[in-house]
Amino acid sequence: MASQALPERETGVGAIHALPSPYLLFLGDTVEPGYAKTAFGLRDWAGDRCLGEWSLPAATVSTGLPRLTPAEAAAQGARSMIIGVASPGGAIPVSWMPELIAALDAGLDLVAGMHVLLTSITPLRELAARRGRRLIDLRVPPPSLPVANGRKRTGRRLLTVGTDCALGKKYTALAIARGLVERGVDATFRASGQTGIMIAGQGIALDAVVADFASGAAELLSPDADADHLDVIEGQGSLYHPAYAPVSLALLHGSQPDLFVVCHQPGREAVLGFPGYPLPSIETVIERTVLLGQLTNPAIRCVGISLNTAGMTEDEAEQLIAATSARLGLPVADPIRGGPAFQRLLDACQA
Amino acid sequence: MASQALPERETGVGAIHALPSPYLLFLGDTVEPGYAKTAFGLRDWAGDRCLGEWSLPAATVSTGLPRLTPAEAAAQGARSMIIGVASPGGAIPVSWMPELIAALDAGLDLVAGMHVLLTSITPLRELAARRGRRLIDLRVPPPSLPVANGRKRTGRRLLTVGTDCALGKKYTALAIARGLVERGVDATFRASGQTGIMIAGQGIALDAVVADFASGAAELLSPDADADHLDVIEGQGSLYHPAYAPVSLALLHGSQPDLFVVCHQPGREAVLGFPGYPLPSIETVIERTVLLGQLTNPAIRCVGISLNTAGMTEDEAEQLIAATSARLGLPVADPIRGGPAFQRLLDACQA
Repeated sequence: MASQALPERETGVGAIHALPSPYLLFLGDTVEPGYAKTAFGLRDWAGDRCLGEWSLPAATVSTGLPRLTPAEAAAQGARSMIIGVASPGGAIPVSWMPELIAALDAGLDLVAGMHVLLTSITPLRELAARRGRRLIDLRVPPPSLPVANGRKRTGRRLLTVGTDCALGKKYTALAIARGLVERGVDATFRASGQTGIMIAGQGIALDAVVADFASGAAELLSPDADADHLDVIEGQGSLYHPAYAPVSLALLHGSQPDLFVVCHQPGREAVLGFPGYPLPSIETVIERTVLLGQLTNPAIRCVGISLNTAGMTEDEAEQLIAATSARLGLPVADPIRGGPAFQRLLDACQA
Repeated sequence: MASQALPERETGVGAIHALPSPYLLFLGDTVEPGYAKTAFGLRDWAGDRCLGEWSLPAATVSTGLPRLTPAEAAAQGARSMIIGVASPGGAIPVSWMPELIAALDAGLDLVAGMHVLLTSITPLRELAARRGRRLIDLRVPPPSLPVANGRKRTGRRLLTVGTDCALGKKYTALAIARGLVERGVDATFRASGQTGIMIAGQGIALDAVVADFASGAAELLSPDADADHLDVIEGQGSLYHPAYAPVSLALLHGSQPDLFVVCHQPGREAVLGFPGYPLPSIETVIERTVLLGQLTNPAIRCVGISLNTAGMTEDEAEQLIAATSARLGLPVADPIRGGPAFQRLLDACQA
């Protein structure tokens, strides 16, 4: 869609990160599948943009994608190599360097979302400059972000919000966007975190943006669109989080969502890492999100609930989903379990 | 007070900007008093730390402080030269360079809050490195800011909040802190913006902090203190601002204020620069601030109102102050006018 077109390079005011694809996924020397969540997420959610994987001989983890050297991937049309694994401590091991260099030599850009920046590694920075290649650190926001203007944009928007961090806001947004597209709805997943950006191929890591520009960055994420287009925006943090609420508020104000889905993990009793802060109820989060969201979209409303029922039996999950839906009078589903409950949630998003 | 001590250098985690004083104020070649507001503010609010002023021959603006060359100021004990004027367009004119260089040569650090960074000017950067001097850009937050921990701190806190930007939150906080100190109260002004930082000699420009760390930076601003100590914290933006609400929320959550004062400019009808956004009422701002502030301090309450009555006659202002006070059942004052109304506001802050 023309209105959704993004600049190839992040020059000028108002560009968001846009990743060159298709990708080659790099798995380093990873032996622990838990460290390769990003690579698995890319395989599952952006498989059409992943040409293959590459790793060191010591690696035992695999996505099952074709194994290609950087040169082979480039010959098949790959445009970037994405570091799809975390390393213990967040550093880039020296053992990875020959492969990162080989990727640049083969004509690929490098993409990473690690705390250690690719651009902080002198040999990579110098080689990339010589080869005319890009080092894209997703934890570094694009330059020249604007201050929010508060102007109402065309098209429709849905934001996933949460009772806390790390309970399924990204997954829920991805599942809703995919489910709607499968129904023929004109919907786009919009990424506000680094893994989401790799999956979407574009986006801004909202938590890394300077506070004055955070709402403006959120506005950029879901630009003007056709009247029946729906942007499904990945939420961050929670309005009840003692550290990250400002990020959540920036996303809420800048996204100006028409609809929101509250994501919750049953059984979690306190904010993750903040034992003195009890988790808010779903009802409280609905009320607070409407109250604050009305600033930029007076028509904001909750369209349903996403429950993360990992660890529950099928029966337990079904009962909890039904009970929560009856209590709130809203569609409730676990997108990972899918089923009729999730279809009812999609019905509501589509209505 | 030992608990308020700040590190001399911003090394390690958790330091805020701390400016070397006494200062020499630099006025450039300014002929328009409006451009020298920072210098006048320093003279008025931090006169005990301003040794003198220096300017180019073309300048007609003066603070009335003794005129000293950088070398003379250094000989009298000055430790930094502060650029106390804005230039049209925000750049540093070439004509200022010899004086900035003279200051570094004389052994002074340079401090500025301009959009153009001192550290972006190669000759200054190189000379400062050679001389072992610092270039302190207040728009660049200190390194290694922490994520907020949400822990309740000792001591008492008051935050100025607003119905909008640019209507007196800094002035109100300064006036309250000064008024309380004059009464013998153990109170400290805490700065969250660049002019405030120059006046306080320390602080963090909250709007320049990355969103994930904004609440954590606000926590640093008002550290643990004696039980009867009161930090009077300069607010930023407004919770109803379509661009800057996240900064305001970070300050509210991180400051965990016991008390707040709402600052308002009668007659202002829309958010400055956002004509589609009507200004919230004082009542609404009180309610919203209590609602959101309760996350980190359940005992938060509004202690009074600061009205910016510039442009009104003495009679008009007095009538409005009295009527607003009767309507809200709270002390209301214009700190610039002072008088018994302001003393009643101080009584309430002290109670």
